[in-house]
Amino acid sequence: MVTTTPLPAEAVEWFSAPNLAYVSTIEPDGRPQLSVVWVTTSADGVLFSTIKGRRKHGNLLRDPRVSILAVDPASPYRYCEIRGSAIIRDDPEGALIQELSQRYTRAPFTDRQDAQRVIVTVRPERVFVKQ
Amino acid sequence: MVTTTPLPAEAVEWFSAPNLAYVSTIEPDGRPQLSVVWVTTSADGVLFSTIKGRRKHGNLLRDPRVSILAVDPASPYRYCEIRGSAIIRDDPEGALIQELSQRYTRAPFTDRQDAQRVIVTVRPERVFVKQ
Repeated sequence: MVTTTPLPAEAVEWFSAPNLAYVSTIEPDGRPQLSVVWVTTSADGVLFSTIKGRRKHGNLLRDPRVSILAVDPASPYRYCEIRGSAIIRDDPEGALIQELSQRYTRAPFTDRQDAQRVIVTVRPERVFVKQ
Repeated sequence: MVTTTPLPAEAVEWFSAPNLAYVSTIEPDGRPQLSVVWVTTSADGVLFSTIKGRRKHGNLLRDPRVSILAVDPASPYRYCEIRGSAIIRDDPEGALIQELSQRYTRAPFTDRQDAQRVIVTVRPERVFVKQ
């Protein structure tokens, strides 16, 4: 059983919209893969939206081990890395991407309306705050 | 033999100081690990400075496969991911960290003066520009 760890206050603040986060997954050959995501937090960890078929979606289905990082919006020299496991669930209405779009752009999300959206929850196992 | 690929103009611009980059390495157990670095580019790829004993240094010694990402300073919705292999060389005088410190902070770097500095060159094998 994997034990999740609570997020410290800095993590909740830095992983709350609107702040970009950087997510790393593992490629089939074991290499790291990186992308940028919009994020928010919940009692379960850090949430982001992606699309079925995206590189990170396929990688996380195969290997849910993930790391996600956000920088302190008030200082580029402080950041938080969260290592954990990804839980993926369908989001057919795109509820999360619409919520995030309002918080990041103050407008509805209109790209790729035909895409099959999922919500990824990063359940934190280890949290590092660097400053 | 690994073939390196030239960096497109956007990558050279976005991975040139002063812009933060996000680097992912592989932990001994295969998980991804993330950190933030100062960067610059050379004919060989993307360069950053680190310290012997840091997590990413140990990881890259064991497995040089690395991914590094920078966001377009002019638009948070465009970014470049470079996947490649890390070459590590000693930098006993800290020449690179001093050069980067001048470009990022306009001041000499004074932290951890006793540290054994190395220069990591990420030799690009695959480059993805997302926009």
